[in-house]
Amino acid sequence: MIVVLKRHATQEQVERMARRVEELGLKAHVIVGTERTVIAAIGEKRNGEQQKLESCEEVERVVPILAPYKVASVETKPEPTVVRALDLAVGGGHIGMIAGPCSVEGEEQIMQVARQVKEAGAKGLRGGAFKPRTSPYSFQGLKEKGLELLAAAREETGLAVVTEVMTPGHVEMVARYADVLQIGARNMQNYHLLQAVGEVPRPVLLKRGPSATMDEFLLAAEYILDQGNQQVILCERGIRTFETHTRFTLPLATVPYLKQRTHLPVMVDPSHGTGIASLVPSMCTAAIAAGCDGLLIEVHPDPSKAVSDGAQTITPAVFAQTLEQCRKVAAALGRGEG
Amino acid sequence: MIVVLKRHATQEQVERMARRVEELGLKAHVIVGTERTVIAAIGEKRNGEQQKLESCEEVERVVPILAPYKVASVETKPEPTVVRALDLAVGGGHIGMIAGPCSVEGEEQIMQVARQVKEAGAKGLRGGAFKPRTSPYSFQGLKEKGLELLAAAREETGLAVVTEVMTPGHVEMVARYADVLQIGARNMQNYHLLQAVGEVPRPVLLKRGPSATMDEFLLAAEYILDQGNQQVILCERGIRTFETHTRFTLPLATVPYLKQRTHLPVMVDPSHGTGIASLVPSMCTAAIAAGCDGLLIEVHPDPSKAVSDGAQTITPAVFAQTLEQCRKVAAALGRGEG
Amino acid sequence: MIVVLKRHATQEQVERMARRVEELGLKAHVIVGTERTVIAAIGEKRNGEQQKLESCEEVERVVPILAPYKVASVETKPEPTVVRALDLAVGGGHIGMIAGPCSVEGEEQIMQVARQVKEAGAKGLRGGAFKPRTSPYSFQGLKEKGLELLAAAREETGLAVVTEVMTPGHVEMVARYADVLQIGARNMQNYHLLQAVGEVPRPVLLKRGPSATMDEFLLAAEYILDQGNQQVILCERGIRTFETHTRFTLPLATVPYLKQRTHLPVMVDPSHGTGIASLVPSMCTAAIAAGCDGLLIEVHPDPSKAVSDGAQTITPAVFAQTLEQCRKVAAALGRGEG
Amino acid sequence: MIVVLKRHATQEQVERMARRVEELGLKAHVIVGTERTVIAAIGEKRNGEQQKLESCEEVERVVPILAPYKVASVETKPEPTVVRALDLAVGGGHIGMIAGPCSVEGEEQIMQVARQVKEAGAKGLRGGAFKPRTSPYSFQGLKEKGLELLAAAREETGLAVVTEVMTPGHVEMVARYADVLQIGARNMQNYHLLQAVGEVPRPVLLKRGPSATMDEFLLAAEYILDQGNQQVILCERGIRTFETHTRFTLPLATVPYLKQRTHLPVMVDPSHGTGIASLVPSMCTAAIAAGCDGLLIEVHPDPSKAVSDGAQTITPAVFAQTLEQCRKVAAALGRGEG
Repeated sequence: MIVVLKRHATQEQVERMARRVEELGLKAHVIVGTERTVIAAIGEKRNGEQQKLESCEEVERVVPILAPYKVASVETKPEPTVVRALDLAVGGGHIGMIAGPCSVEGEEQIMQVARQVKEAGAKGLRGGAFKPRTSPYSFQGLKEKGLELLAAAREETGLAVVTEVMTPGHVEMVARYADVLQIGARNMQNYHLLQAVGEVPRPVLLKRGPSATMDEFLLAAEYILDQGNQQVILCERGIRTFETHTRFTLPLATVPYLKQRTHLPVMVDPSHGTGIASLVPSMCTAAIAAGCDGLLIEVHPDPSKAVSDGAQTITPAVFAQTLEQCRKVAAALGRGEG
Repeated sequence: MIVVLKRHATQEQVERMARRVEELGLKAHVIVGTERTVIAAIGEKRNGEQQKLESCEEVERVVPILAPYKVASVETKPEPTVVRALDLAVGGGHIGMIAGPCSVEGEEQIMQVARQVKEAGAKGLRGGAFKPRTSPYSFQGLKEKGLELLAAAREETGLAVVTEVMTPGHVEMVARYADVLQIGARNMQNYHLLQAVGEVPRPVLLKRGPSATMDEFLLAAEYILDQGNQQVILCERGIRTFETHTRFTLPLATVPYLKQRTHLPVMVDPSHGTGIASLVPSMCTAAIAAGCDGLLIEVHPDPSKAVSDGAQTITPAVFAQTLEQCRKVAAALGRGEG
Repeated sequence: MIVVLKRHATQEQVERMARRVEELGLKAHVIVGTERTVIAAIGEKRNGEQQKLESCEEVERVVPILAPYKVASVETKPEPTVVRALDLAVGGGHIGMIAGPCSVEGEEQIMQVARQVKEAGAKGLRGGAFKPRTSPYSFQGLKEKGLELLAAAREETGLAVVTEVMTPGHVEMVARYADVLQIGARNMQNYHLLQAVGEVPRPVLLKRGPSATMDEFLLAAEYILDQGNQQVILCERGIRTFETHTRFTLPLATVPYLKQRTHLPVMVDPSHGTGIASLVPSMCTAAIAAGCDGLLIEVHPDPSKAVSDGAQTITPAVFAQTLEQCRKVAAALGRGEG
Repeated sequence: MIVVLKRHATQEQVERMARRVEELGLKAHVIVGTERTVIAAIGEKRNGEQQKLESCEEVERVVPILAPYKVASVETKPEPTVVRALDLAVGGGHIGMIAGPCSVEGEEQIMQVARQVKEAGAKGLRGGAFKPRTSPYSFQGLKEKGLELLAAAREETGLAVVTEVMTPGHVEMVARYADVLQIGARNMQNYHLLQAVGEVPRPVLLKRGPSATMDEFLLAAEYILDQGNQQVILCERGIRTFETHTRFTLPLATVPYLKQRTHLPVMVDPSHGTGIASLVPSMCTAAIAAGCDGLLIEVHPDPSKAVSDGAQTITPAVFAQTLEQCRKVAAALGRGEG
């Protein structure tokens, strides 16, 4: 890392800082510029050395050179990771399509939508049994009953079940029913939860927090990888910006950016990313054209009856057309489908 | 709420929507404008009716009229809530000062800083035993040992201990040692954790998430209040914006805005809010002048030795001067101190 | 618009506000809810009535129902506008490709790149003669000499020249050389400039400001349209958010959102939108898949020699491949090319 | 600056880049780290060298070490600049209060408010004659007639007139009437306008653009200073963030941050910064406590009759109380008043 000293740092202060750098186990390399002296601190450390140096009074700022994540890095593992659950495959050339309602509402609803998205070509079934809701007065999900219904839908359709787990105490239960554990955007930095899902033999779909940087996102994945679970899918689902015409702002440049830096597969959720059903199809084809490894889409037989997120939910008919368009775009760009 | 219909909605569609509104238990009031028809939906419901109406195809958008929170609202309880723990009092005219290191590092450190902040006038001691860290490779806190040290510092100084709890499974343990349970910014929407702290007889200091709106912040408080725990302090600690010269952007207008809407006390954390020690004193006096009910400040005997957040940590000497300035500003504005 | 009154508004205050609404030439419709009274103010006015009502002390807030723009609206003119300049056509099914260097640097450079982008399939040549630069110490463009070189390049290649005009005093001069006048992002709300380009018979390419909302963007276009110039292209070029891994955040949902609301064509600038050359090709295909009417791309024979914006500039070879990919995506989605 | 090379840069590439750095007139200092090689490029250049190096294919990124502004820097001129116009003094210990309506509406209005703000203690009178309005259909100001009324108000009260100039062609005219030329937030990067006001002998009040970084803000000031006009006031007026409960987000940490880096005075505009009249008084005292050199406040005899910005405008009575509170806070902190 590069330690930039304050303008009037004395020779003595420079030497003191160089010693401080060496005490931290790094090699110090002093460079005297025309207006500032900087110290290049050489070594592989990533354990808070930056913060320690930043708080010295001689220091103006510290610029890290190395990425803070390791296991997720394409430099550590150049070949792409493929995440698999039943017939769902995501990454390494496989485009995985996961669809279903925001919430599991009842047997008829989940069975019907499962059949419909399966027929359209999805390989994974999404559906919330435990729902993180902004208000305590909103519907909180069918809980374990919802998990049972999802498992029944898998039984009939063969779709892999993707569902959210909200708290460490539920990981074991949700893992009994689900094929892929989803970590919601609000929980991206719930570290105990990340560690808990890192310990079970289930793929994890990790959603980006709405104000998370790329480094924070990859470090959240690193919490899971660090526990031994290598089956992690990253999912861009929109960030919070000043824009209000969409629910969130969907930054698709995330897709090629991440794919240059990590071996983990990258999915996109255009339903939360826009919050508006009529924008979802265009954002699906755009995400495929941007190079993503899969889509997570909210589909409901009758969005106006959905207990949650109806405004961003498309119908099975629109979903089928959208998937058809996505296949054409993928084929045009020489990409196969999972 | 106001349901705005699409431009070419037919008479039949308008009637269908009016019936839909009434089916949800609300009274429908149709208003035909020059370019749009809107339906005023009258009633007290706050259970997802908005989402259901938004997803009807005749509807362009739905505008809520009522605030989504209830118990936290000044309309429900006009008199200000005072949160108390030992000698610490926050709200209702009491300005509570809480200070201490980012992390508890050892007995000598925490005892020393506790004595110093006590002498300067603080009534609460902050210090992290369980630390949410962006990277899994950073120091994660002394855990229960840290709690023991905090309790020992309280023993000696009489300061109320304020410390973070990160996961529902730890609430019982942390509550055994702490006087105030802190919910960190990353966990503002960790609903199981909010419910868990809502069930214990300990005041809660709830930090605003870095991308949380005011409604989301108050609804997070509502999760705690809804469990029966009425001792909740709201804490502004900076939001994520495009600014990079500070760690976060500290929006002090939050203080008067919240105080017009809620009876809960409002604190400010200028350490995280700026991330830069030299900006902390000015932001402390500014926060007091903005009307806040207390401050949460990172103080360490030697910031350059701190294991975390040193760059935003002030020394005990600067803390003492800052508190003196705060007292003067409070006095000038006719405000007492806790 | 909907005028929401404060909670404890008296009958007398409600009546006073209803009269105030009628004085402004609107029809007042009072609706008494369970917790709030609202007044629906009916009429077509868009001249500051909202602001006047907002500042009355009885009023909590005012919610507009109608969009603030008129001429740009698809409700005013349902058929898409096609903007044409020489062989360049943008909108109404035509996808227009405009490419070239950030700055015109000299005869050889601009001639070479013009031939190269023409051969790859571009119909428009971009290049800055007057450059808005963040620092007064950076290269400010070749000025009129640059315009002459652009005109010479048009002479040889037949490409339409697209170049920025920065100030009203230059509009006449730039319009003598250019086929399309570009308004840069920094000048999106430079109203005298918008009015000036609204008075000349040249198409205008209007870039979105980095913190402009959709309404502000369309109202900026409305300033031009209002002067009688109907040939306006909207261009999304990225917004300022907390993200730092890209220069700006490119929100492609802008494309379908705008196309649902305006008849004006919508282009995308993935060079400024990302700031990173290696992300540009993916964002080009994604923008086409999102439904945009054209692309504006920075191309330079040797980006490392470019006097400005080299990091986001692609080579002619990459440009040719990218255009080929864009054609395939457009064809897959049944869209032609301009 | 620090040039970070890509991971697998060969020895030959390193040497090529070092030569490239030297060709730009900088001294190259190669540092081989454990995972990356970086080149420290030493010298005082600020003319686009960074961009040139960034676009070389061997380069991952370039980190500047020096601030990009010079004349505005406290390193160039350590003593604070005091800006004076009639009795108004801003900076160097002087706190300048400027108040008045958003728009000049007529003789009676401007005379009345001028007398009222003068009596309360203001030394400057604000008021818009040329108004930048988001919509072309909104009131655009009384234009030169408005300037005449402002001059008449100065005649009677002795207040210094502060008013906005929107385009280079108006600078000469506005400077004939005004004592301080205001550059609005939308025009912060209107470089021809900045240069034009840099050439006239009038102090300039430069507002921060709603998405401008600190470096961009100071470089905009540098455009003015570079033309020879040293009387520049910086004014924080709120930034655009995801927050919607206020019109903009007012980041008061700007005040101490700028004062550590520039000799120019720093004012705050809490009216635009919040957009809500009831939040203005608290933000005034907070800004003073944060150390600002003055306030710019919207005041109107009857805000509900104001033709623009009524919702954020306070009455003369509230203004008088607020100034009284500000004086108390300034005195408590040992600061005088202008």
